Amino acid sequence: MARVSKKSEIVEQGLQVVLKQGFAQAGVQEIADAAGVPKGSFYNHFASKDAFGAEIVDVYFGRMRPIMAELLGDKSRPPLARLEVYFDAIVSYARDRSGQGCMIGTLCAEANGAADVLRDKLNGVLDEWRAPVTACIAEAQARGDLAPSPDADTLARFVIDAWQGAMIRTKVSRDLEPLETFKRVVFGGVLAPAKRRAARPPT
Amino acid sequence: MARVSKKSEIVEQGLQVVLKQGFAQAGVQEIADAAGVPKGSFYNHFASKDAFGAEIVDVYFGRMRPIMAELLGDKSRPPLARLEVYFDAIVSYARDRSGQGCMIGTLCAEANGAADVLRDKLNGVLDEWRAPVTACIAEAQARGDLAPSPDADTLARFVIDAWQGAMIRTKVSRDLEPLETFKRVVFGGVLAPAKRRAARPPT
Repeated sequence: MARVSKKSEIVEQGLQVVLKQGFAQAGVQEIADAAGVPKGSFYNHFASKDAFGAEIVDVYFGRMRPIMAELLGDKSRPPLARLEVYFDAIVSYARDRSGQGCMIGTLCAEANGAADVLRDKLNGVLDEWRAPVTACIAEAQARGDLAPSPDADTLARFVIDAWQGAMIRTKVSRDLEPLETFKRVVFGGVLAPAKRRAARPPT
Repeated sequence: MARVSKKSEIVEQGLQVVLKQGFAQAGVQEIADAAGVPKGSFYNHFASKDAFGAEIVDVYFGRMRPIMAELLGDKSRPPLARLEVYFDAIVSYARDRSGQGCMIGTLCAEANGAADVLRDKLNGVLDEWRAPVTACIAEAQARGDLAPSPDADTLARFVIDAWQGAMIRTKVSRDLEPLETFKRVVFGGVLAPAKRRAARPPT
């Protein structure tokens, strides 16, 4: 078996503590305890708690990346269908981790006083997340599946924010209704394929 | 001048601490210090920190209620215009309190381990917030300004979640772009008045 470094162990166990409790609530001592290392060891690996936060965002998002690449990049499906399959997949992921919410959204919500290292990381992963969503929407617009306005970047920002808001409400609703509502409105309206109208000049 | 009770002072100062730092990060000692009372006084007034959280949610939402009632209940405007004026007003409110986000959304995001007293309060204010939004949407649907599906309650849930997601992203974007994006997509699409088509039987 591969030996797990102390740093990896702190990240892995710390990620679980943060998913369970939120970031602010997760104490450095508790994270060190969960990883089975002394508190000093935490600070050997991370300059600050916010630097640790940036690291777990990286690891968490790193686990999302393959599913994004696979589902949003699957050219065998039309672009709006790819988006729907992708959001179906992350609803299933959320179902298996009930009440945890999305770590990225949770850390954004707790970012009031966050250091630049953490805020920059959150903005960075949001940009990286948005890119393939924007690309699918732009492709749908180019094909005429979707109206050209609002532009793809604006729609992608909106859809990801709406997803985050829905994920956050699952923490108090304690069910998946907010995510089902999101899917219903997004894929029944915001990103629904335009009905192809018969081209008929006005009379 | 009216004398301010210790409880009111704890609520008032505690609300500011929570808006600045988030709920988990705001310590009881710090809240007591901000209110100029001993820590024991906090626990004379609140059974727990979550009970205090429920109280500040009540006070915070209480301040939103008059603007909601005034703008969403203003029958001199058509219902979709009322919604737009209302969201304009809360964008302005957010502009004046840059980076604080919405306390309700922030507390939902931090609600992983929240006691029922706080979770029930959050669900309660979300219900109360949604009611007049649903009513405006239902009125717009009844007038034919908006398609009848998805139903008004689903649309209201979606729009408020999307708003919360946008508010949360303002904490890392540190500008109002997420709120402008929200308004653009919601009032240009999700809640845009249907173009009145000439009633013409299909031929």
